[in-house]
Amino acid sequence: MKFYDCETAPSPRRVRIFAAEKNIRLQKVAVNLADGEQFSDRFRSINPDCTVPALQLDDGTVITEVTAICQYLDELYPEPPLFGSSPANRARVTMWNIKAEQQGLLPAFDAFRNRSRGFAGRALTGPDSFDQIPELAERSVVRARAFMERMNGELANHEFLAGDEFSIADITALTFMAVAIRLKIELPADLDHLERWHSEMSSRESAAA
Amino acid sequence: MKFYDCETAPSPRRVRIFAAEKNIRLQKVAVNLADGEQFSDRFRSINPDCTVPALQLDDGTVITEVTAICQYLDELYPEPPLFGSSPANRARVTMWNIKAEQQGLLPAFDAFRNRSRGFAGRALTGPDSFDQIPELAERSVVRARAFMERMNGELANHEFLAGDEFSIADITALTFMAVAIRLKIELPADLDHLERWHSEMSSRESAAA
Repeated sequence: MKFYDCETAPSPRRVRIFAAEKNIRLQKVAVNLADGEQFSDRFRSINPDCTVPALQLDDGTVITEVTAICQYLDELYPEPPLFGSSPANRARVTMWNIKAEQQGLLPAFDAFRNRSRGFAGRALTGPDSFDQIPELAERSVVRARAFMERMNGELANHEFLAGDEFSIADITALTFMAVAIRLKIELPADLDHLERWHSEMSSRESAAA
Repeated sequence: MKFYDCETAPSPRRVRIFAAEKNIRLQKVAVNLADGEQFSDRFRSINPDCTVPALQLDDGTVITEVTAICQYLDELYPEPPLFGSSPANRARVTMWNIKAEQQGLLPAFDAFRNRSRGFAGRALTGPDSFDQIPELAERSVVRARAFMERMNGELANHEFLAGDEFSIADITALTFMAVAIRLKIELPADLDHLERWHSEMSSRESAAA
């Protein structure tokens, strides 16, 4: 099993944190995104979407998309459960993982790639060229801040984002916060519960992954 | 268990198709999106994201996000399996379900809501107001067409999107195609495999759901 990784990129970090929580040692293959290695013929034959992370199984099957990779690792290494531990809990974890990805992380990526000079002409990951849309960057910052308020409301009632157990949803949300901080998105005022949670998540050993 | 539904909306239809494939009868509660019922205080107390579908369990727990709802139903009614039937298959189903949602359906929604007059000021689902961004609608059409080509390549090798078994990924992709057709997005030429698959999916009994 080979894990195609990039130390500096947020998406493979989600898998690294997940693996660290389960004490899984992944065989890593570095893909140099800064040099455009994801667009090389060699890497395109592994993942035509030109993105990391990707997990190549021993039979050659390639799994991409962070949640799919983590789900596969969870089946191989079930302890501790990071996708919830009852049908209703598992549904809540999946729900919050999707929200953290689609309402948090993807808008943060959109904000980053549609306004950073380094991404001119590459406003989306993947093999195709897209011009930046500054209005989309602005809208995305508003969405990212709105999701922080939404998280804060949820974290007023629970220790973790999807309830009383640490889960993949917390990992996705922690990665969202890291991108937001790098983007210097100002936190809305008085998000005490979000700050409490963020400080706890950041001090877990896995956050160094 | 109550299923908050809207007959004319694509997202709850994904759950209706999923339930039809499993012969599950859902207790439906209609939410009139055309009249803005999703913004009523009553519905906000069920789902503050103001979206359908939502599944309310008997203990009051509310599950939103189509994939989370389907996963919960899949645990209650495991046959036939629609999330794959081995760890590697399940990972492939999750991967293609995410791709169909994020590279197909979400861009199609973005195209629709950022250019249709009826959605002025409501370019995103949810409680907040967002102006339309015409450039985003254009970019999203390009992305939707690129994903059709990507699907066509995959469907050259497999009967179904995630391999040799019908799965939730096919349901998400079928819904994406329905939105694209409603948007009158022109199919790229010579997508024979996509057309074969689309015709097969459309003729399943569940597609009427």
